[in-house]
Amino acid sequence: MHFEAFSSSELAAYLRGIPAVSARLGDDSELDVVEVGDGNLNYVYFVSSARDPQRSVVVKQAPPFLRLVGEDWPLPRERMEREVAALRRFGALCPQHVPSVYHADSEKFLMVMQRLDAHRVLRQGLIDGLVYPHLADHLSTFLARTLFHGSDLYLAPDAKKAAVGGDINTELCRITEDLVFTFPFEDDPSNVYSPALPAAAIERLRTHEPLRRAAGEMKWAFMNHAETLVHGDLHTGSIMANERETYVIDPEFAFYGPMGFDPGAFIANLLLACYARDWHDRVAGRDPAVYQRWLLEQVVQAWNGFAEKFAGLWRAHERETGRAYIGGPAGTRAAEAFREDFVRRLLADTLGFAGCKMIRRIVGMAKVAEVTSIKDDAVRARVEVRCLRLAEALLVQRRELASIEAVVALAGQVLAQPVDA
Amino acid sequence: MHFEAFSSSELAAYLRGIPAVSARLGDDSELDVVEVGDGNLNYVYFVSSARDPQRSVVVKQAPPFLRLVGEDWPLPRERMEREVAALRRFGALCPQHVPSVYHADSEKFLMVMQRLDAHRVLRQGLIDGLVYPHLADHLSTFLARTLFHGSDLYLAPDAKKAAVGGDINTELCRITEDLVFTFPFEDDPSNVYSPALPAAAIERLRTHEPLRRAAGEMKWAFMNHAETLVHGDLHTGSIMANERETYVIDPEFAFYGPMGFDPGAFIANLLLACYARDWHDRVAGRDPAVYQRWLLEQVVQAWNGFAEKFAGLWRAHERETGRAYIGGPAGTRAAEAFREDFVRRLLADTLGFAGCKMIRRIVGMAKVAEVTSIKDDAVRARVEVRCLRLAEALLVQRRELASIEAVVALAGQVLAQPVDA
Repeated sequence: MHFEAFSSSELAAYLRGIPAVSARLGDDSELDVVEVGDGNLNYVYFVSSARDPQRSVVVKQAPPFLRLVGEDWPLPRERMEREVAALRRFGALCPQHVPSVYHADSEKFLMVMQRLDAHRVLRQGLIDGLVYPHLADHLSTFLARTLFHGSDLYLAPDAKKAAVGGDINTELCRITEDLVFTFPFEDDPSNVYSPALPAAAIERLRTHEPLRRAAGEMKWAFMNHAETLVHGDLHTGSIMANERETYVIDPEFAFYGPMGFDPGAFIANLLLACYARDWHDRVAGRDPAVYQRWLLEQVVQAWNGFAEKFAGLWRAHERETGRAYIGGPAGTRAAEAFREDFVRRLLADTLGFAGCKMIRRIVGMAKVAEVTSIKDDAVRARVEVRCLRLAEALLVQRRELASIEAVVALAGQVLAQPVDA
Repeated sequence: MHFEAFSSSELAAYLRGIPAVSARLGDDSELDVVEVGDGNLNYVYFVSSARDPQRSVVVKQAPPFLRLVGEDWPLPRERMEREVAALRRFGALCPQHVPSVYHADSEKFLMVMQRLDAHRVLRQGLIDGLVYPHLADHLSTFLARTLFHGSDLYLAPDAKKAAVGGDINTELCRITEDLVFTFPFEDDPSNVYSPALPAAAIERLRTHEPLRRAAGEMKWAFMNHAETLVHGDLHTGSIMANERETYVIDPEFAFYGPMGFDPGAFIANLLLACYARDWHDRVAGRDPAVYQRWLLEQVVQAWNGFAEKFAGLWRAHERETGRAYIGGPAGTRAAEAFREDFVRRLLADTLGFAGCKMIRRIVGMAKVAEVTSIKDDAVRARVEVRCLRLAEALLVQRRELASIEAVVALAGQVLAQPVDA
């Protein structure tokens, strides 16, 4: 393996050699190349026509090592190929919510994709208190279409099994297994606790049996339940949006896993955003309750929209093939009863994963900006304690919470409870 | 692919060409070759020294097509390789309960293995009312050792994932998906109903919602929960035993699946054997209650033995590595609470699979001899109705049945209930 980063002129020359990309950028101009990568993992460039900056693409290069450290910290060679494959797969199912891939080059660990320059990372938009009128509708469509079509509910058993075998993502799953499901619950050196977080809250993550049992179950489900091709990292930093459009990006963690993992990640991040308003709105002199209500309403709409669309796709597929997954003709009461149960269990899984995702963002290595940007240690600790309380309740009560409305009511109760910290 | 069956002299010459096998048979004698295959699927030969018949091996040849039909009905080429790999894997974990493989030849779809000539197929022994003093102990050891060591509880995540990818068994899983989890619950032409079985009992399998929901969940678990390398067909016809020894054979259905599938198959077949005594003992002038009690006692001992050995292996592994699966040090109360929950959930899965396995043996294509050999149609139908009732109760109540003793009590109640048929 040899990898060398492009200079600007080398990258421009490389892209000019790919007719589909070159035509998109316009043939009549110099190319502007700007590096915008985060510096840790990948190289990311915006490339645009100097004459017509609207003509623009994104180039992402994922070297088979950690960029920050170099070749001494190897990463799987197929990292970029996996991301390209997932983008294409999700894009075929849901083109309106997935950026187009114009070109991929395994040798150079590189892909060229649609530039989303009218969109912002959703997490930043939520910190700024923006309202996205179509977010819940778009995300629920993305979730329903991708999760349904990768599963045994849609695919023939041989196609599904071939996909499971092809989409094993050992190294990146390991990161999730450790950072989401294991390290937060033990005294791991990678954990980062904010200064005022009470020791009792940390201790509870390590010793409270109902919580540990539930988190262990979710770890087992993550490692064993190969239900569908999941995005694997669907937090609000993996979504680009504006008032009209919503795109899901960065599926390099994609693998055959449990269906609840993606909706769980999304809902967890909406809940974190909601609880963090206590700081962001108060420093701006606003009543946090207004935007918190909007965020909780998105949780309800996203889940209910997902559940309805998912069941609708499934029902339509059974009607079309004439057969139910459980056997027998489509449209029987038994088939419908199984479907209702299935979606109810999926909600329980979703809540369990949401709980684990919230916990890791509070005590684990990788944080979320809406919480870390809270400058007052005492306020931040209160927000964090509430996040941990809600996460625990989601995990422990996930099978009793019969609807997303009940979940949001619980979130409201925990938000209203006093915190001693 | 070309396959030609051996003549006796060709097979003898072939075996003489393999030093390890030839030595085992003794070099000083002619070889006797007897074909004993069942004729449908495979060719099976007993080969022994003419001078010393104690020196003997089994040769099993699994052509890549259905023997009964020929090359027009293809079967997966790797069928024999998969069986050999599973025998070697299980044998390494549990040599005392798995026949040794002396030689395998992928080109010829053939393996040479230990002859078990002092043992009988367990199903036949149970029909004859034999008592096996060590059966439950041996089987529970086999189950605990194989199911534990193939799972994430023992293997490193990368080794486990590589094994999952390598042990996808699409064609044979498809047979189980259809014949165990789908066809019995619909009007499929492959179903075979015995003459006096009431129509209401058949109708109930197609329409009773709690049963259909539960069976659908078990189908989903079978198709999605890649927990460990399971045998995949562990009925009493896949076990050879005598009073002192127990061997598990024929793992060609092996795949990464749910842990409860193997104990479920075994328990289902003990329960079928138990309910069929009403005929076999009465025609022999015996009180069926005696052997029924012994069979139910084996259910209890097999499960409790398994649960204890499984938890023991897991606990010892965590102690050795110093770490619990759920994170944190070994030996915490949380780790123990998770383990208890895990085994309780595993019992629920086991009962669900047992229920499906019982149902398929009553209404599906593949029957069990203890039931089909009941010559009186009315008695057979009563036995079958009871089997279906118990199977339904196991499926629907699987999460409420908190112990194997409760399961056996339930089996006794259903046995005592009158049947109108």
